[in-house]
Amino acid sequence: MSAPADTPGRLPGEFDLIARYFAPIAKSHPGALGLTDDAAFLDLPPGHQMVVTTDAMVAGVHFLADDPPDLIARKLLRVNVSDLAAKAAVPVGCLLALALPRGTTAAWLEAFAQGLSADCAEFAIPLVGGDTTATDGPLTLALTALGSVEAGHAPLRSGAKPGDRVFVSGTIGDGALGLEVAKGGLGDLAAPLREHLLGRYRLPEPKVALRPVLRAFAHSAIDVSDGLLADLGHICEASELTATVQAAMVPMSDAVQIAVARDPDLLSRVLSGGDDYEIVFTADPADSDRIMDASIKVGVPVTGIGFIGRKGEGAGPRVTVGDLAALNTVLRVTGYRHF
Amino acid sequence: MSAPADTPGRLPGEFDLIARYFAPIAKSHPGALGLTDDAAFLDLPPGHQMVVTTDAMVAGVHFLADDPPDLIARKLLRVNVSDLAAKAAVPVGCLLALALPRGTTAAWLEAFAQGLSADCAEFAIPLVGGDTTATDGPLTLALTALGSVEAGHAPLRSGAKPGDRVFVSGTIGDGALGLEVAKGGLGDLAAPLREHLLGRYRLPEPKVALRPVLRAFAHSAIDVSDGLLADLGHICEASELTATVQAAMVPMSDAVQIAVARDPDLLSRVLSGGDDYEIVFTADPADSDRIMDASIKVGVPVTGIGFIGRKGEGAGPRVTVGDLAALNTVLRVTGYRHF
Repeated sequence: MSAPADTPGRLPGEFDLIARYFAPIAKSHPGALGLTDDAAFLDLPPGHQMVVTTDAMVAGVHFLADDPPDLIARKLLRVNVSDLAAKAAVPVGCLLALALPRGTTAAWLEAFAQGLSADCAEFAIPLVGGDTTATDGPLTLALTALGSVEAGHAPLRSGAKPGDRVFVSGTIGDGALGLEVAKGGLGDLAAPLREHLLGRYRLPEPKVALRPVLRAFAHSAIDVSDGLLADLGHICEASELTATVQAAMVPMSDAVQIAVARDPDLLSRVLSGGDDYEIVFTADPADSDRIMDASIKVGVPVTGIGFIGRKGEGAGPRVTVGDLAALNTVLRVTGYRHF
Repeated sequence: MSAPADTPGRLPGEFDLIARYFAPIAKSHPGALGLTDDAAFLDLPPGHQMVVTTDAMVAGVHFLADDPPDLIARKLLRVNVSDLAAKAAVPVGCLLALALPRGTTAAWLEAFAQGLSADCAEFAIPLVGGDTTATDGPLTLALTALGSVEAGHAPLRSGAKPGDRVFVSGTIGDGALGLEVAKGGLGDLAAPLREHLLGRYRLPEPKVALRPVLRAFAHSAIDVSDGLLADLGHICEASELTATVQAAMVPMSDAVQIAVARDPDLLSRVLSGGDDYEIVFTADPADSDRIMDASIKVGVPVTGIGFIGRKGEGAGPRVTVGDLAALNTVLRVTGYRHF
C-alpha cells in the first residue's frame, strides 16, 4: 500500500484517500474500526430498533457541480438526518458512497471532508463506513443514516387518525424560494432576505431537537422534503385519510412573507415547493397546549395548520387548502419528480 | 400521486417506480413498511450488533453499461453480502441508492428488479429502503447491507495472531481470469472453461454458509475482492503482522489450472487479481482438522495456504509468496485502484 507521489492537487489512491480524509471523521466511533475493515459494528440499546434511511444526490440534479464542496457534504448529511428526526430517532452512524469525477482535486475533497466532519460532529452521527470510486459522470453521492428508536415509538406516515390536528415546525417556503434565489430570481428582495432564503435552501436545519415532542405526542410524522402539501399527502396516503390545511395558518419567515406580499403567485410555490426539512406531524388536538409548551421548551416552535379528516370520496384530493380555493390546483403537485 | 401515462418503455415517476419495481421486493419484511415511509425499522436479537457495509458500482468502471441488468443487480447485492459473510453476520436487510441515466427503459428496470428480487430471496436479505434519482452520467448504484452478529464474535481484519494458519475458501483466480475472458482474452481456452470463468466474474457466490466455521474458529477474516495477496495484506496491515503463503497450495479451479499451465505468467494475476469473493481467514493451526471437517459439513471447502508471522523488519513486504520468489514483485500490487 505505497502512497502515490504527493503532488499538490493530485488525488491519492483509494486507501490513502480514506485514511487521509475520512478516517479522521470516523475516529469518534470505535465500531467504525477506523474505516480499516469492510464493515462497521453498531450497538442498539435494549428494546430499541435500528432506523435506516438513504438519500442520493447527483451533481446537476440536486446541486450544481461548482457548489461549495463543504455545503454539498453538509446538505447530504442533513437531508438524511432530517429523515431520522421525523422518525424521532437518535442518530447512530452513517455510511457514505462517493463516485468522484476524474480530476477531482485534493482541495475539493478536503473541503468536502471538512464539511462532513463538522456536521457529523454537530449532529452526533459518526461516519462508520463507505465506499469511494471514480466515475466518468457527475459527482454522485449516497448517504445511509442509521438511528435508534424505542421499538414502537417512531411516528410513521401511516399513523394519522381522523380528527388529528396537523402541526408543522419552523417556517415553510424558505427552501423553495431559496431555490429561486439560487437560480437568480427574486432580485427585487433586499440582499439580507435573499441571503436568508439561499441559506435555508443550501443548508437545511433538520429538527432533531423535536424528538421528545414527536416521541410523546405524534401519531404520524414526515419531514418536508417534497413540499408541505405533498408530504402531508404522503401521510394521508399511508393513513388512508384526508387533510385540510389553512394557508393563512402556515408559518412563514419574514423573507417569505415579503416575497409573497409582492407576488401572491408565489404562495403556491411556498406550499408545494420542497427542501424545507421542517417536520409535519399529526397529534390529538387535546394535546395542543402541551405540544406548544414542549416544542418551545426544545427550541423548535410548531404551529397548528389544519386537521386530518376521514377518507375522501372516490378520486377526491387527499389534501385541501381550506381558505384558498384557487390553491387546490396545487394538489396535483406531488413534489419534484426526477423522471 | 397520479401515475403518468403508461407508455410502453417510458419510465414511471419516482413514486410509481418504487411501488412497481421495488416495493414487491420489500414485502417480506414488515419493518420496510412497503417502502412507503422515509425510513425502515430493523430489529436486533439481544446481545447482537448490527454489521453495516456499503459498496458502490459505476457503469464503465465496475461493469459495462450494456451488461445484463439482472446480473448488475445481483453482483451489487452479492459483493455486499460477501462483506457480511466475512464478518460471520446473518443478513438483516439492504438499502439501494440508484442513479438512473435518462432514457432508462422500463424493460431494463424490470430485469434489474427481477435480478435483485431473486438474490434478496436467495440470500434472505430483504430490501428495506432506498432512493432513486436521475443522472446525466452513467448508471451509478450504491447498496448498503446490514447484518447481525453476536457482539464480539465477528472476525475482524485486525484479529490475526502470530502462528495462525491462513485458510481460503473455494478456488482463487476465477474472478481475475473471468475478467480477462470478459475483455475478449483467453480465447485459446475451451468454451466451457471460459464460460466458467466468466460466470464466476459476473456472478460471485458469497460464502455465507461459512458463517459457523468463521464464528467458531476464525481470528481474522476478509473477503477476496481486491485480490488474495492484497486482502491477506489488509489482514496483516490491520493486525500489524506478516504472512507467508505457498503458491502451490492455493486452490484453483480446473479452468484456472489449465490457463496457468498454458501461460505461467497468469499465476501472478491469479494471486493478485480481485473479484473472487472467497473468504481468507486465519485460525489456530491446532484447529485445522476441525476447520476442515466443519467447512466440508457446510459445503464450503477451505484450504490451508500459509501462516501468519511476526511483524516484519522495517519496510519489508507484508505478504511473501514462499515458493515462488519471482512472484514477490506482486506484493507491491494492492488490488485494483480506482484513481
